[in-house]
Amino acid sequence: MTTSWDDRYAQRTQRMKGSAIRELLKFTEDPDMISFAGGMPAPDAFPTQEFTAACNRVLQEQSEQALQYGSTDGYYPLRDMIAKQSRRYGIEVTPENILITSGSQQALDLLGKIFINNGDRIVVENPTYVGALQAWNAYGAEYIPVPFDEEGMITSELEKSLRSGPKFIYVLPNFQNPTGVTLSFERRLQLIELSEKYGVPIVEDDPYGQLRFEGENLPPIEVLDSQTRAQDGCYSGNVIYTSTFSKTLAPGIRLAWVIAPPEVIQKLILAKQGTDLHTSTFNQMVAYEVGKDGFINEHVKTIRKIYRERRDVMLDTLEEHMPEGVKWTHPQGGLFLWLTLPECVDSRELLQQALKFKVAFVPGVSFYPQGGHANTMRLNFSYATPEMINEGIGRLAKAIKQFIADSTDG
Amino acid sequence: MTTSWDDRYAQRTQRMKGSAIRELLKFTEDPDMISFAGGMPAPDAFPTQEFTAACNRVLQEQSEQALQYGSTDGYYPLRDMIAKQSRRYGIEVTPENILITSGSQQALDLLGKIFINNGDRIVVENPTYVGALQAWNAYGAEYIPVPFDEEGMITSELEKSLRSGPKFIYVLPNFQNPTGVTLSFERRLQLIELSEKYGVPIVEDDPYGQLRFEGENLPPIEVLDSQTRAQDGCYSGNVIYTSTFSKTLAPGIRLAWVIAPPEVIQKLILAKQGTDLHTSTFNQMVAYEVGKDGFINEHVKTIRKIYRERRDVMLDTLEEHMPEGVKWTHPQGGLFLWLTLPECVDSRELLQQALKFKVAFVPGVSFYPQGGHANTMRLNFSYATPEMINEGIGRLAKAIKQFIADSTDG
Repeated sequence: MTTSWDDRYAQRTQRMKGSAIRELLKFTEDPDMISFAGGMPAPDAFPTQEFTAACNRVLQEQSEQALQYGSTDGYYPLRDMIAKQSRRYGIEVTPENILITSGSQQALDLLGKIFINNGDRIVVENPTYVGALQAWNAYGAEYIPVPFDEEGMITSELEKSLRSGPKFIYVLPNFQNPTGVTLSFERRLQLIELSEKYGVPIVEDDPYGQLRFEGENLPPIEVLDSQTRAQDGCYSGNVIYTSTFSKTLAPGIRLAWVIAPPEVIQKLILAKQGTDLHTSTFNQMVAYEVGKDGFINEHVKTIRKIYRERRDVMLDTLEEHMPEGVKWTHPQGGLFLWLTLPECVDSRELLQQALKFKVAFVPGVSFYPQGGHANTMRLNFSYATPEMINEGIGRLAKAIKQFIADSTDG
Repeated sequence: MTTSWDDRYAQRTQRMKGSAIRELLKFTEDPDMISFAGGMPAPDAFPTQEFTAACNRVLQEQSEQALQYGSTDGYYPLRDMIAKQSRRYGIEVTPENILITSGSQQALDLLGKIFINNGDRIVVENPTYVGALQAWNAYGAEYIPVPFDEEGMITSELEKSLRSGPKFIYVLPNFQNPTGVTLSFERRLQLIELSEKYGVPIVEDDPYGQLRFEGENLPPIEVLDSQTRAQDGCYSGNVIYTSTFSKTLAPGIRLAWVIAPPEVIQKLILAKQGTDLHTSTFNQMVAYEVGKDGFINEHVKTIRKIYRERRDVMLDTLEEHMPEGVKWTHPQGGLFLWLTLPECVDSRELLQQALKFKVAFVPGVSFYPQGGHANTMRLNFSYATPEMINEGIGRLAKAIKQFIADSTDG
């Protein structure tokens, strides 16, 4: 009797959905396609020379350690480097506050694993990062979406969500994925105040914080939270923070980290042991070699310059080509902007049209845990060159105009 | 109000236990300690030169791909290389049967994620690999341990376990972790027959299969299973197979794979998307560069020679030093052997004594899902040099003799 696999999957497997973004990747393999769909960094900005030198140094001097099993919490010098960097921003952390993860996606998965029981509620921005929903759907999370505007989560609407005892509040405060919007300073303060009042922790996902092109840096929520507490040299507040080397170095090495109170880090370590034992020792040592003398701070200046130019080209060409009734955000950093079409346009249907014009984007609906908002889309401006952005936005505008004309005819 | 974290963890977090092996790692940092506790490959056998050349080639020629996000299923040429290698052993697989994972531990985690509902039963060897228990405890697995002897799982005792509808049968057929025992050919056939009869799939964990020093190679269970079926160029039987580059190349790159029917691979891909998006593109491309021209087959010959010598030294010194009443297995390959002490000795208590003598091992109890068998221990022979093994087994024998003498006095 051959096994009927369908009868054997766990209940959670029914809740797993493929990411619309990952499914769109296959279209981007068409060399004529201009894709604004992925969230990929500019490959021309990868620090290949520095990686080559670091690989050679690590393999020449420390290969017996680099190729061997390592500890679950991560390579100590790398955790120490991250702690020092974080302290520069005013947050008192030590390596005991830090766990290295295999990309931010693993940080989200491990947080789901240690915190979420089936049916638990998570407060999220509406829209929010779809990868977080994917990670937490597997643990049976339910979502309380909080309305969102050009200053981020509308924190005056947050309080009623907190009364129902959610597990945590999930926010992407800087140049949010998918919208590019930044949570304002006043709302950061209100968020912490409410988190404190109701004893609900905050998960702060900050992959893009260093990629600000203009405007003033706002302090991370974790920093604001730690300022409200007595310092003991080791952070122990209400905020769990996560960031990554994917945008400042390269995503292909799958390196990110979580900052949390030591007792939470200990639980995450237990969960990670059972999940993948530890993150690649080699990659951690290479990243440390690349970053240890301050290279990353220099390198992000280059990235900011490239992304700023690309954002500007995208904003200019949107202005030039888009028909009336189309609106978009003006992000001050990051990789994405968010476009809103006239109400009558379903961007999933538009996508079929756009692909014929050889341009791709992500329909907005998948970023809303309860669906709706079908007239929105996410556009990435970090991956395509300025010339491609210029051409691609032209194609997208044509597709939109034709789609609207066809709808009106019909 | 500061969050009380203890009140917020999920139920599954209570079931997570630290690995006794990982906790012992801290003792191995003492330079005077001789550790037989870890499962670490010989660092002197790491192919550092080949890694260095491969890193340089990949970064020089393909850095834009190697440092970028990649697909969740894995780097196609690497999957193709694994498929070709597997076909040499008689199993008809294509890249569609293969998912690259971040170490075998992730393969175990993902299998738990897609298959195990809270309370589901898994049939395991008694003892079995503790990392599998760690992975599956998080999903609420319960275990049906099947008695085990020098020919592996006693398959004549298996049938009654299958009547209760377990999710799958988990076996490590070659040089099992922890015992070093190999499942006999007859029992492999009986295992497949029973799996077929009851429609219960088999998860075959084979990290050490290529590391046979002596005796005849036995076909993987998946190969035997596929021989009972009509071939259509794509494996679709009852067996899910997993193996790794950790023992044949290096564990620090965290690369392993699952072979399964394509429909199961699709579910594993969905689960992996939410778990860590994908495994390091860079590491996959480097492993492909190292392995593509047949290097691994040559390299395992070197490893086998080293490990055989170390096993022989361990067997000889055990014979020389151990007091009466102590027995051990004679593995034909792999990294471990299994030692049974007189009934009166609890190896956890003995370990405290042994650490004073500067020698470490893993007490056997943690490999038994229902505990017991306190008079057993796992010894690793791949990591320490022959000189260290000689010295370390001498120390261990002294510790055992003293422990027994102390117990008798008391």
